[in-house]
Amino acid sequence: MIKVVIIGSGNVAQHLLKVMLNTEEVTIVQVFARSKESISHLIVENQITSTYNDIKEADVYIISVSDNAIAEVASNLPFKNRLVVHTSGTSELSVLDNKNRKGVFYPLQTFSRSKAVDFSTIPICLETENERDYAILKALADLISKKAYAISSEQRKSLHVAAVFVCNFVNHLYQIGNEICNENKVPFEILQPLIIETANKITQLSPKEAQTGPALRNDTKTIEKHMDFLQESNYKELYKLLTQSIQNV
Amino acid sequence: MIKVVIIGSGNVAQHLLKVMLNTEEVTIVQVFARSKESISHLIVENQITSTYNDIKEADVYIISVSDNAIAEVASNLPFKNRLVVHTSGTSELSVLDNKNRKGVFYPLQTFSRSKAVDFSTIPICLETENERDYAILKALADLISKKAYAISSEQRKSLHVAAVFVCNFVNHLYQIGNEICNENKVPFEILQPLIIETANKITQLSPKEAQTGPALRNDTKTIEKHMDFLQESNYKELYKLLTQSIQNV
Repeated sequence: MIKVVIIGSGNVAQHLLKVMLNTEEVTIVQVFARSKESISHLIVENQITSTYNDIKEADVYIISVSDNAIAEVASNLPFKNRLVVHTSGTSELSVLDNKNRKGVFYPLQTFSRSKAVDFSTIPICLETENERDYAILKALADLISKKAYAISSEQRKSLHVAAVFVCNFVNHLYQIGNEICNENKVPFEILQPLIIETANKITQLSPKEAQTGPALRNDTKTIEKHMDFLQESNYKELYKLLTQSIQNV
Repeated sequence: MIKVVIIGSGNVAQHLLKVMLNTEEVTIVQVFARSKESISHLIVENQITSTYNDIKEADVYIISVSDNAIAEVASNLPFKNRLVVHTSGTSELSVLDNKNRKGVFYPLQTFSRSKAVDFSTIPICLETENERDYAILKALADLISKKAYAISSEQRKSLHVAAVFVCNFVNHLYQIGNEICNENKVPFEILQPLIIETANKITQLSPKEAQTGPALRNDTKTIEKHMDFLQESNYKELYKLLTQSIQNV
């Protein structure tokens, strides 16, 4: 049995809380949240605290707050030599306070409040200062996911940049596609099988091998037609830059 | 039974040929290919011709060649008043020769030679000059796919531009993510669940609702870190432009 205190009540904190409450071998000892209401729909009130001095003993303290609050929260903890981890893709291990043992427990996924996720498929990137703590985090990760990886702060930084490209930026291109469809009275659902296939394809081919389309073929006639078609200067500029980028690699 | 002649031996032609050969109520009468070798692994040689005058009678002639060859191929056909369609996302119905009845049969998917596709999920965009011909194409589309849509030349043009954004450009962002991982010795497979979830998410939420990440949160500290991290000027520029674009909508 691994005893966990979750510190934070945001998106990632809530998803972690939900999956851990449903995991037999994890006990959620407590949740620390500045406002109890933000989390009381998931856990009974007497298990929520907003007072640092009331935080109970646990094997792992998971700080899941915004990046710029991690250091302050870690330094406010009124105990020492316990295992305190954060869940951030961008913050280094070293932002945590030296009085406790440090770790990172970063689930690499896009979390929206209104969409359930299957945690078992989410890669969890782990980092600790020593092997004993790694074993604790690995055991915890293995209880909720099939995939745990040892990832250093430096590697995690690169992973987070890459994740922005393949998730946030990709989703933004979906949004542009959606808007082009709306403007031309074409149902966006026509594009969904293409979107799913494009994502699935790279589990079998590398993205480089999987590439198709006018930019790759250097089909200048089609590229010109598309540039003429696009009215919004922002879309035009993105089309141009992405086409050039495909042709440069 | 619908009798079909396929004209062309490229990527789309081959995928269409494969699915139609496996569809009981479609008869592939013949394939027209400039070089028989390009297609002889899929169909017996006496069903392939490279002579226009040898093309047999059929209900539908599917021209699946590169965009700039469609008009020439259509005008070379030695018959008239038959139903001749092309499979292009970018070419208008009107590029086909007036001597025959015109149509478009555009399967909206990304076809790679080395990856099989499930045709039943591929939307097929149809256009004809009259209802009788539409009924023929609709019957043919229904035999190989669950989804057929009536899409005008103007709508198809917008759809093709949108498809470039959500497929080719998205795949290019996957490639950038892949390269960032390689450069930093992180396995790219860590990002695959994120990629699949990002694609699946928009079947339940609109891309706008689904957006997350530093650009949306206007997390300038993380954005600056990422910009510093990116060495390649091309990636830097894309990061900047896509971040601005997310913040503008």
